[in-house]
Amino acid sequence: MTFPPLRDELRGLEPYGAPQLSLQQAPVQLNVNENPYAPSEAVVADVATAVAEAATRLNRYPDREHVELRERLADYLTADGGARVTAEQVWAANGSNEVMLQLLQAFGGPGRTALSFAPTYSMYPEYARDTSTRWVTGRRDDEFSVDVDAACALVAAERPSVVLLPSPNNPTGTALPQATVTALCEAVGDDGVVVVDEAYGEFRRAGTPSALALLGEHRNLVVTRTMSKAFAAAGLRLGYLAADPAICDAVRVVRLPYHLSAVTQAVALAALRHAPELLGRVDALRAERDDTVAWLRDQGLEVADSDANFAFFGRLADRHAVWQGLLDRGVLVRETGPDGWLRVSIGTPQEMTSFKEALLVVLKEEQR
Amino acid sequence: MTFPPLRDELRGLEPYGAPQLSLQQAPVQLNVNENPYAPSEAVVADVATAVAEAATRLNRYPDREHVELRERLADYLTADGGARVTAEQVWAANGSNEVMLQLLQAFGGPGRTALSFAPTYSMYPEYARDTSTRWVTGRRDDEFSVDVDAACALVAAERPSVVLLPSPNNPTGTALPQATVTALCEAVGDDGVVVVDEAYGEFRRAGTPSALALLGEHRNLVVTRTMSKAFAAAGLRLGYLAADPAICDAVRVVRLPYHLSAVTQAVALAALRHAPELLGRVDALRAERDDTVAWLRDQGLEVADSDANFAFFGRLADRHAVWQGLLDRGVLVRETGPDGWLRVSIGTPQEMTSFKEALLVVLKEEQR
Repeated sequence: MTFPPLRDELRGLEPYGAPQLSLQQAPVQLNVNENPYAPSEAVVADVATAVAEAATRLNRYPDREHVELRERLADYLTADGGARVTAEQVWAANGSNEVMLQLLQAFGGPGRTALSFAPTYSMYPEYARDTSTRWVTGRRDDEFSVDVDAACALVAAERPSVVLLPSPNNPTGTALPQATVTALCEAVGDDGVVVVDEAYGEFRRAGTPSALALLGEHRNLVVTRTMSKAFAAAGLRLGYLAADPAICDAVRVVRLPYHLSAVTQAVALAALRHAPELLGRVDALRAERDDTVAWLRDQGLEVADSDANFAFFGRLADRHAVWQGLLDRGVLVRETGPDGWLRVSIGTPQEMTSFKEALLVVLKEEQR
Repeated sequence: MTFPPLRDELRGLEPYGAPQLSLQQAPVQLNVNENPYAPSEAVVADVATAVAEAATRLNRYPDREHVELRERLADYLTADGGARVTAEQVWAANGSNEVMLQLLQAFGGPGRTALSFAPTYSMYPEYARDTSTRWVTGRRDDEFSVDVDAACALVAAERPSVVLLPSPNNPTGTALPQATVTALCEAVGDDGVVVVDEAYGEFRRAGTPSALALLGEHRNLVVTRTMSKAFAAAGLRLGYLAADPAICDAVRVVRLPYHLSAVTQAVALAALRHAPELLGRVDALRAERDDTVAWLRDQGLEVADSDANFAFFGRLADRHAVWQGLLDRGVLVRETGPDGWLRVSIGTPQEMTSFKEALLVVLKEEQR
């Protein structure tokens, strides 16, 4: 065998991840949907105090069940979604990608199928691959939404044990109507779980509901969230889910013991105490997002409706040239999803001005 | 299908983990091999400062490659093992159990076999199960060591792609001679990796070598370490490996992006700056360990030679009764490994006095 003895399906693959460029290389970083607003001094001070307190017991293992954190996350979800969520319905891990991996370990695996609808988040097939779960994708329509009848027919044909439904979708920003979630939960039934990935849920437009409201109706529904985006805590790596307690119990069987450090638990609790401040920037980002979408359309570009903190725009004859042209002007966006489209994260007003100025120049050059 | 649709092999299983009792329930906690010495005020203050600094950028994703941390871990391993280790040879994750999971995802999986020698760490079969890797165990001899010829014959018969070799072994404390590691690396060859799990490596007795010294000789050798034990940082969840850079590159393909938070990286770096202080307690624990082993033997008990921060003792006619009797007196030890044996972690001198006093009473009661 060729050394190292990597599994055949992993050979020659590059690790997943957007390029990480320095601020010198790209002063305006709009490529990984980070929240552009750093925590305030008050948040930083409270985080430091919380960690100092936890560090006095750093020689001891953390609470495997992270009970206090689950209680506070449940309170937050109850307030955000409008329906009561209890701590027994909540489970957290190191980023929602670890939550997804645990769900696939428990409910996917060899001989089982996971299903999503493309174009969608490019990590999903990696979770499936890393758990040896068969991976099937349906197609989204021209507006990147999911056709309910076609989706239910695909479920009937493929019998997935996990359906991954991001809402809003990444990289397109498209949210799902409740009726689509309900129809898919019913189509999948007790043979599987339907995971509505609401990583960007807090950025949804007025009138766009959260799937949290449906938890009481479908015991096979899992809603995932993250503190990376709305809570401006990408560096913390804290993802979580809300679901029937039986689903949390199932995930508990495959989680690594003590997977969530005492430090992570302490920082997440401190951030949750500052939820009003951290979430206070969400409204500003939503307004900036709507402005960006409108501006891009004014330039004659096609832009997907967005319920997230990014905009997905096209159709570009040579998207790589546009991506490179923007980078040459210090603006880093993401080349992802279907050809002809680019994704730009919503930054500060100043950053969006830089993006717009650079894009105008690049588009003019492209047209020559 | 029965809801929830858990994989068949996971149904009815309890999550792994020792009972987590409060200090009220068990004032003397000697059950999970924690280091009994909490960080000093100086360490706590530096951890808090480091996290405060990292928290000013908490809205940004962490360094996926954790370059600075790998450099400092490489420096530490070079000093500890005596042979030069470079940052390209180091990879870290959330606890050495995530390191193990990543190794099994890369090199194990469906159609492949992982091998160890029982009695050994009870999480190993869980890593294999969670990655759908076939799990095979050889037997250790009566002194809990590994017979080289039998082990190599088992490798030849089973062709494992991963061999897990804890040294010192958990729960027995038994270290492996270099010759055993070398023989197994050669027997496995390029078809697999040999993982020497040195979670307790820093507690090895004078004259017991680390497998780090063999890294230059065997490109299929992986040595894993953790900051949980010697660094007294179980609450941090920081495990790491040293191996050929090609092995790090392979693990990189299956790691979740941004698996190691900015906070974890900052705290680990702070702890490494205080290595002399944190590791200063290791010598005291080794002396206490040797005293405990000698004392237990003086009581007529059989005790495995220990290179770790725990002692494994037997043979007890009813080990559960002894475990319960100790707990009734406020001393929590671990009921694990072969029947008739118990494992006690090495605590402070005061804690070991409590353990000894309680054990004398319990053993006397048992003999009635």
